Amino acid sequence: MEIQKIEHIGIAVKDLNKSIKFYEDVLGLKCYKIEEVKNQKVKTAFFKVGNTKIELLESTDNEGPIGKFIEKRGEGLHHIAFGVYDLKLSLAELSDKNIKLIDDKPQEGADNLDIAFINPKAANGVLTELCEAKK
Amino acid sequence: MEIQKIEHIGIAVKDLNKSIKFYEDVLGLKCYKIEEVKNQKVKTAFFKVGNTKIELLESTDNEGPIGKFIEKRGEGLHHIAFGVYDLKLSLAELSDKNIKLIDDKPQEGADNLDIAFINPKAANGVLTELCEAKK
Repeated sequence: MEIQKIEHIGIAVKDLNKSIKFYEDVLGLKCYKIEEVKNQKVKTAFFKVGNTKIELLESTDNEGPIGKFIEKRGEGLHHIAFGVYDLKLSLAELSDKNIKLIDDKPQEGADNLDIAFINPKAANGVLTELCEAKK
Repeated sequence: MEIQKIEHIGIAVKDLNKSIKFYEDVLGLKCYKIEEVKNQKVKTAFFKVGNTKIELLESTDNEGPIGKFIEKRGEGLHHIAFGVYDLKLSLAELSDKNIKLIDDKPQEGADNLDIAFINPKAANGVLTELCEAKK
């Protein structure tokens, strides 16, 4: 697999507007997009940092993955996403190496990405996402 | 404050060698440095990804910050580090805004960096590091 870059870092937050204020007013970053991703049950806010991004995630449903994460662990770092050149090929390579995946096929992600998650048990407890820009 | 880039993502691991194998053999990244940071009670391994880095952290002392983190939460994402142009000025700006800091002065970090941590309670539960390359 060839990783191009860290595409984004996902951070679970309770209150998107309050957290946007921290990243803008304190750290001096600028939110360029707010987007709801219905299949992931989240509302997201994006900030460009160099050639990577911060993605803040607020749950829209306590039974969704971010709702459950915050209930269990509180707010904080949620996932790391690597940009790859060919997502399908990367997933096939991981399967060949018997790496446990959450998604064995690309899913619809936020910000015009196809995404898939590796099972954190296979990745040092880190929820690891692979993504490829939509063509 | 002006953030230049995400300097690195810190990941707490139990077994540095085993985790290096995952990042090298599965994700195809290459470890370019292993370094012990005695004042942080960790052994670290670095991987370049685009213009940012992954820093794996193995505790050298159960009473150190990574030892305690792993005992409480297990392996996983530990901190996000932003590169700034002027660390002292950035810390002064944060103090002026009454943002709680862990380090009010630059500390010695790994990989030739001066570093300081913001209190995670001030940053959506995220342990947030600022760093500046040593001159």
